[in-house]
Amino acid sequence: MKVALAQLNFQVGNIKKNSQRIIQTIEKYNNKVDLLLFPELAISSYPPEDLLFHQQFIDDCYQAIKTIADYCEKTAVIVGFPRFHANEPDKIYNSAALLQSGQIKIIYDKQKLPNYLVFDEMRYFTPGNHDGTANLDIHGKNIKIGLSICEDIWNEAEPVVNQAKMDVDLLVNISASPYAIGKIQKRINMLQNHASSFKTPLFYCNLVGGQDELIFDGTSVAINAEGQLIGQCISFEEQILIVDLVTQPSSPITFLEPVAELYQSLVMCTRDYFIKNGFKKAVLGLSGGIDSALTATIACDAIGPENVTGLLMPSKYSSNHSIEDAKALANNLGIPYQLLPIESIHLAFEKDLIPIFDDYHQNQTDENLQARIRGVLNMAFANNQNAILLCTGNKSETAVGYTTLYGDMAGGFAVIKDLFKMQVYALCQYRNTIDHVIPENTLSKPPSAELKPGQKDSDSLPDYVILDEILEAYLHHHKDPNQITQLGHDINLVKKIIQLVDRNEYKRQQAPPGPRVTQMAFGKDRRMPITNGYQH
Amino acid sequence: MKVALAQLNFQVGNIKKNSQRIIQTIEKYNNKVDLLLFPELAISSYPPEDLLFHQQFIDDCYQAIKTIADYCEKTAVIVGFPRFHANEPDKIYNSAALLQSGQIKIIYDKQKLPNYLVFDEMRYFTPGNHDGTANLDIHGKNIKIGLSICEDIWNEAEPVVNQAKMDVDLLVNISASPYAIGKIQKRINMLQNHASSFKTPLFYCNLVGGQDELIFDGTSVAINAEGQLIGQCISFEEQILIVDLVTQPSSPITFLEPVAELYQSLVMCTRDYFIKNGFKKAVLGLSGGIDSALTATIACDAIGPENVTGLLMPSKYSSNHSIEDAKALANNLGIPYQLLPIESIHLAFEKDLIPIFDDYHQNQTDENLQARIRGVLNMAFANNQNAILLCTGNKSETAVGYTTLYGDMAGGFAVIKDLFKMQVYALCQYRNTIDHVIPENTLSKPPSAELKPGQKDSDSLPDYVILDEILEAYLHHHKDPNQITQLGHDINLVKKIIQLVDRNEYKRQQAPPGPRVTQMAFGKDRRMPITNGYQH
Repeated sequence: MKVALAQLNFQVGNIKKNSQRIIQTIEKYNNKVDLLLFPELAISSYPPEDLLFHQQFIDDCYQAIKTIADYCEKTAVIVGFPRFHANEPDKIYNSAALLQSGQIKIIYDKQKLPNYLVFDEMRYFTPGNHDGTANLDIHGKNIKIGLSICEDIWNEAEPVVNQAKMDVDLLVNISASPYAIGKIQKRINMLQNHASSFKTPLFYCNLVGGQDELIFDGTSVAINAEGQLIGQCISFEEQILIVDLVTQPSSPITFLEPVAELYQSLVMCTRDYFIKNGFKKAVLGLSGGIDSALTATIACDAIGPENVTGLLMPSKYSSNHSIEDAKALANNLGIPYQLLPIESIHLAFEKDLIPIFDDYHQNQTDENLQARIRGVLNMAFANNQNAILLCTGNKSETAVGYTTLYGDMAGGFAVIKDLFKMQVYALCQYRNTIDHVIPENTLSKPPSAELKPGQKDSDSLPDYVILDEILEAYLHHHKDPNQITQLGHDINLVKKIIQLVDRNEYKRQQAPPGPRVTQMAFGKDRRMPITNGYQH
Repeated sequence: MKVALAQLNFQVGNIKKNSQRIIQTIEKYNNKVDLLLFPELAISSYPPEDLLFHQQFIDDCYQAIKTIADYCEKTAVIVGFPRFHANEPDKIYNSAALLQSGQIKIIYDKQKLPNYLVFDEMRYFTPGNHDGTANLDIHGKNIKIGLSICEDIWNEAEPVVNQAKMDVDLLVNISASPYAIGKIQKRINMLQNHASSFKTPLFYCNLVGGQDELIFDGTSVAINAEGQLIGQCISFEEQILIVDLVTQPSSPITFLEPVAELYQSLVMCTRDYFIKNGFKKAVLGLSGGIDSALTATIACDAIGPENVTGLLMPSKYSSNHSIEDAKALANNLGIPYQLLPIESIHLAFEKDLIPIFDDYHQNQTDENLQARIRGVLNMAFANNQNAILLCTGNKSETAVGYTTLYGDMAGGFAVIKDLFKMQVYALCQYRNTIDHVIPENTLSKPPSAELKPGQKDSDSLPDYVILDEILEAYLHHHKDPNQITQLGHDINLVKKIIQLVDRNEYKRQQAPPGPRVTQMAFGKDRRMPITNGYQH
């Protein structure tokens, strides 16, 4: 028995294009494989979010499934789509159609609806109540399959456990399971455990591609009844993999190194944001620092250096090496850059503002002003050149609010927003092992915003090793001050950091989207009140 | 039997302060009433959002309930709080404790968890499975009450229907039911219908106050077994109302006029955003137009004119009347203002930008630049004076993206973001009936952004009456182009407007929060993908 896993990169909402790609794939594999799998909600792509509240949208998805069925011959095809139940037109299901010989043979509705982290499926869907089993005639032999959708196979996996009890010959799961650091291995281990404990082969077809903040890694797999991998799609790329059930397990399949996997996830997500939104060009401010260096490098790998422009916008507080390091980076990457000193604009603002405020230079007004002048110049370039401004902020500084709203926080896409500062260093070092694009001085000099004379990040923040550890404990694991102190940190420092995180929620809620690489990114994962009187 | 409805304005997360207010209230009414009700989740206030994932937070709420119980004597007290179930420590419940004689007598867990519009309760809570009935000894007589929490009493209201079948003597519902236009009457009608159909008196205690985007109107009520109102708290203010069950229905209780109700909702929400976040002062740009005029007026009513500063930032495209109208408004309101012409700063930018771009004036770069210079000046003032910048954008322009990101969209709070343009006019006219603060010329002149010579909104948009109708059909009712055309609109116009709405999702996702007055505000109500290929 031959099964094809069609790990394709669909576009949310683009029913027409997604259907065309499905039809092309069916036409190519019709009668050449026995079973052809597409991911969860392939027709609408995932997550369609509130598009699901448009009746016409769901009707269009159903029409698409009927059209696709017309192209199906002997090969059984499984395609995910959202639908209204025929008898319950006010309820929406997250469904999979089994198509064969021009017909919709059965429809299975997802039973387990995730409603945590980024997932809001209970907002949209009603859980299904069919068992997901179906009989296929494969070369004259009856094969009973157990069909499930994504969450159905996670945690207690009741729908799949029930299918196993009904003696299915084959488990099939179609998914849109987003990437996070460490999740690929965890997911495949989970799937192998299911296959071996149920002594049933398992085919798992996952979505690939970037969708706003979400990264779908693909990494679809075929697993035999002993729990061994007999096929694995590449991560972060489209692939149609044909697996014969009698295939022997190959030598252990190698995974990407963690740092390479993380890097590729960012490149794919950034590329898809541009392509799927119809943009070609990017612009970003190059400060000579590590954050903008990594952002520029990822952008070049995503959309090509010819499409990335760097703006060098020194102020009177900028060090000489800032400009030199930024130029070296631009030259190494082969990207065009523009030098736009902000001094004359800064003076024009000061001239008008100083008479109004007695204490103009006594607080952060002037520091923020410089960052905002750069934001305005960046946006002028983006508007004029039809480019997306890339925001260069990392998770550590965004967490504590060491960023200027409408200044360095401005942008259409924030490539490294879910990376702590130490991960930024690690990715730069990794990328330099491929070719040495990020200048050594950028990596070795102490981080600074250069918004006042001699300023260093370490003036007001602990070492990033310590900061990142405190932030991870607080943000990712919801630890409280006393628990974090037990990791070896000073209680006053911990309280200060937590207070900064809490107080800066208002800034993050105005931040641009960017690739989510953890299960606790700033975005849909973390829904905190701005107005928040909790004292830890 | 005497019941007190404690309609109080709690602060999300501030367990200590909320508990103190509850204890003060208990001490005041102990033994003076038979039953004292506080709103849903009074201890944490509503919605605590992801604070609920901090174990210490839930533990603190439980400790608070135990402390509060110590203050309870003969009066039975019902207080909402989140809790872990003793036997299921990984599950969280939205609960109500019945406290009496120093003890937690029973705990009821909310059964119906809303997970639509702004609500994410299935993200946090497990539905309860107790029936919510309890017996109270009132002057030696056994009174059986049916206790429910908010959503339990809406829609099919199964928990309350079941209580009615169990012959309760009294229905009690504690709520955190947010305001929307038209909802107060609808809610009270629903409650009256329940009381009369079950022939059981009903006491309903609702939260009051603003929390980020949400407005809790209060409007708590007492209804007799005939479905007649025998007590009603004021909307948008704190009130502790004592109702004796034998009270005769008074003359029909009068509701606020719809436009007055809407106005008051905005004032309360704005005031609470300032107070609860520890801010006193506001700043905003005054353009002489109607949006900034209404925003300034609401701000004055919320925090006092002495705390509101207007910035007048004319450009070379500004008409004379803009400055005159803005000054007249400031004088009418009695607020300070600063005149900050942007011409010299604009020239400084142009000087640096024109050499870079061949076609600098051929697109919207220069228009956006002017808006962003004003954004930077506004933010400089806000930073320097520790003020919150008020964003003056309305729902009509935000919907179609006729706003500049980091320009007029900049701000900490967007007072009129959920008002269509025609509602802005209506509220101005209403406010002028109280005292004539908004200049006649501001109301009568054609709307213009004044970012290029002779520009008018009507150059590129239909009349606001038409635009608002199309937007309401599309945004609020999820109508598709053909359905909207049936309202009498041109199909090409409808398609153009829908395309503008869809394309500008990226801007709205970076917009500041502001009062939600409809059930489809830009914010948690509407969760649309930015990357969206759907063709209507």
